Amino acid sequence: MSVTAPSGFQAAGIDAGLTSGTRPDLAVLAAEHPAAAVGLFTRNAFPAAPVLLSRRHVAGGRAKAVVVNAGQANAGTGAEGLADATATAEEAAARLGCPSEQILICSTGVIGPRVSADRIRKALPRAVAALSGDGGSLFARAILTTDAGPKETVAEGEGFLVGGCVKGAGMIAPDLATMLAFLTTDAAVEPAVLDATVRQAVAPVFNTLTVDGCTSTNDTVLVLASGSSGVRVEPGNPAAVSFEAALREAAEDLAKQLVLGAEGANRALVVQVEGAPSDEAARELSLAVAGSLLVKTAVFGGDPNVGRLLQAIGDTSVPLDPDDLEIELGGQPVIAGGRVIGFDQDASRAALKEREVLIRARVGTGAGSATGFGCDLGYEYVRLNAEYTT
Amino acid sequence: MSVTAPSGFQAAGIDAGLTSGTRPDLAVLAAEHPAAAVGLFTRNAFPAAPVLLSRRHVAGGRAKAVVVNAGQANAGTGAEGLADATATAEEAAARLGCPSEQILICSTGVIGPRVSADRIRKALPRAVAALSGDGGSLFARAILTTDAGPKETVAEGEGFLVGGCVKGAGMIAPDLATMLAFLTTDAAVEPAVLDATVRQAVAPVFNTLTVDGCTSTNDTVLVLASGSSGVRVEPGNPAAVSFEAALREAAEDLAKQLVLGAEGANRALVVQVEGAPSDEAARELSLAVAGSLLVKTAVFGGDPNVGRLLQAIGDTSVPLDPDDLEIELGGQPVIAGGRVIGFDQDASRAALKEREVLIRARVGTGAGSATGFGCDLGYEYVRLNAEYTT
Repeated sequence: MSVTAPSGFQAAGIDAGLTSGTRPDLAVLAAEHPAAAVGLFTRNAFPAAPVLLSRRHVAGGRAKAVVVNAGQANAGTGAEGLADATATAEEAAARLGCPSEQILICSTGVIGPRVSADRIRKALPRAVAALSGDGGSLFARAILTTDAGPKETVAEGEGFLVGGCVKGAGMIAPDLATMLAFLTTDAAVEPAVLDATVRQAVAPVFNTLTVDGCTSTNDTVLVLASGSSGVRVEPGNPAAVSFEAALREAAEDLAKQLVLGAEGANRALVVQVEGAPSDEAARELSLAVAGSLLVKTAVFGGDPNVGRLLQAIGDTSVPLDPDDLEIELGGQPVIAGGRVIGFDQDASRAALKEREVLIRARVGTGAGSATGFGCDLGYEYVRLNAEYTT
Repeated sequence: MSVTAPSGFQAAGIDAGLTSGTRPDLAVLAAEHPAAAVGLFTRNAFPAAPVLLSRRHVAGGRAKAVVVNAGQANAGTGAEGLADATATAEEAAARLGCPSEQILICSTGVIGPRVSADRIRKALPRAVAALSGDGGSLFARAILTTDAGPKETVAEGEGFLVGGCVKGAGMIAPDLATMLAFLTTDAAVEPAVLDATVRQAVAPVFNTLTVDGCTSTNDTVLVLASGSSGVRVEPGNPAAVSFEAALREAAEDLAKQLVLGAEGANRALVVQVEGAPSDEAARELSLAVAGSLLVKTAVFGGDPNVGRLLQAIGDTSVPLDPDDLEIELGGQPVIAGGRVIGFDQDASRAALKEREVLIRARVGTGAGSATGFGCDLGYEYVRLNAEYTT
């Protein structure tokens, strides 16, 4: 059900001929009434046209609908690309009877080519006609590129729901697998409160996720709140606590599905770091391990080459004392006092074969902690990325 | 000839049983008279024991000899590891008749296991007896791990020579392919002048080199000057100009050999960045492209997916204006004004098949420039790194 699990939303996914083969590739999510809306966007210096447009539109705090196309990222397309995105927003606004500033646009696919704004314009009436209260799963399918399958979630709050879906086949953000995430809720949340909660509960999850360390031109997280449940979220009230927890639960579920569904990935890497000088330092350390090519290939090979964990966590600018470093792999200590210690090779090999490979590092006595999500890297990643446009 | 091309040096490489199979794995470089010496070391937070020792010893400005073992990195080995390195330095000092502070130590191999200090101690007399004025090539072979072959260089200055060799099979610095570089010269240079010249001419070359973005626990560059040629290098004199040029030439030659010899690599990526706000910003941008997994796999696949160049160069914190971005691939413009433009696909495919793939980016009107060196990434990299210790 993904984005249509909460009440107040309809969605659709149709084949608009934007990708090769027969598959849905144009997705629309519409709120019955303009919803409170918040967006997080890529920090790449060359954001795609739909990012430029949506960043401006979402600043108004309200959105009627989100239109997503797969096939082309509409990045590296200059002024024409922006005109294409604007035309799509205007057409959608006309069909849905709202100002075009209430339309948010996302694109995902190859960087460089323009989108077929004409095909999108012609297909939009059909997509709007197909909007349905249980269209969430079709929406979740229509936003995919090289993803193995849709990634959906529903989390239950006290009297409301949070629903969502995500696409991202290879990472946080190569050009072929830009990460797009959509979360909806029927809780009633003012835009400013929604913004603060998303920054608190959602941003850290998607910012500790790495597949290949590449931040795309299109990365976008959009969160819409319809208010249809009647449950009001206000700073400090019980609903706020429940809302933040449900949002985080939904985001973490999507994050795990994303790394497990990454191009060529077989295993999720979950790297918990504690005792760092700050949460930000812990985040940096967890990503240094989760994103290390040497760790990723060792996990792919099921090779307990634990010296690489020490190398990787030392490879940031965070000041650390070797004497304080303790690392566990799958619950078994493998590094203590900065030294690779004797450990059960069979047990560590078994831990590397789990669907989730758990690495826990204590780096000192600070209060900072973070959990990073990554995945292994094998031959299939190379095959997919060596042969993408050709 | 590598490190013994300049006069005043002898070298040897012998089989001390530190690696499996029959191959030289213990290398010694000795100066006739204590040489001016400078070192650059890894910034990893968990430096190997030999790094801790050599950093302290080289601070004295003079070195009699360098002892290198392959097989074990002597990193993640705690106090015992430091004792092992110290014992090796003391044994070498006794054999060569110098204070142990004039001995520099390097280790390369797997992180975690201790070196066999006992085997090294027993083999050192044999290595010292084997020292010879043309032992440079044996030295260059004895420092290798998974390298495909030795990487040596000689550059000619006005009245003196610079010789060198490097090891590093996979990168700047995974745990199996720590980068070690050794440069010698028979120019006469005081330690302080040598230090300044090395930081000016050598450090930037090795700092714009990436294979997998992993900085090892053992990376070391050692530069020794014997003075045997009688040519005095002093700040501002003609010999200083010639010396800096020869040092840079030798370092760049070794850098290119290193990326071309990287694990599983078929091609060198040479990324020239101009118009950046500063040289440091240009360095960061060149490494973002040379180190991008998506660029590396596209080059491996011979796939002119040029949108990835735009994505990669945007993926740093350097502020850039899309309108200013121009990129050439193999001399052909592919991105102009921040847009992927029409280009000759066949020509770009051919450019991607060259031994050196040249990417040139102009990012603005600043004075900063840099050249980054990288390589492609294919199946063989994954195979080597998934199966290293097992």
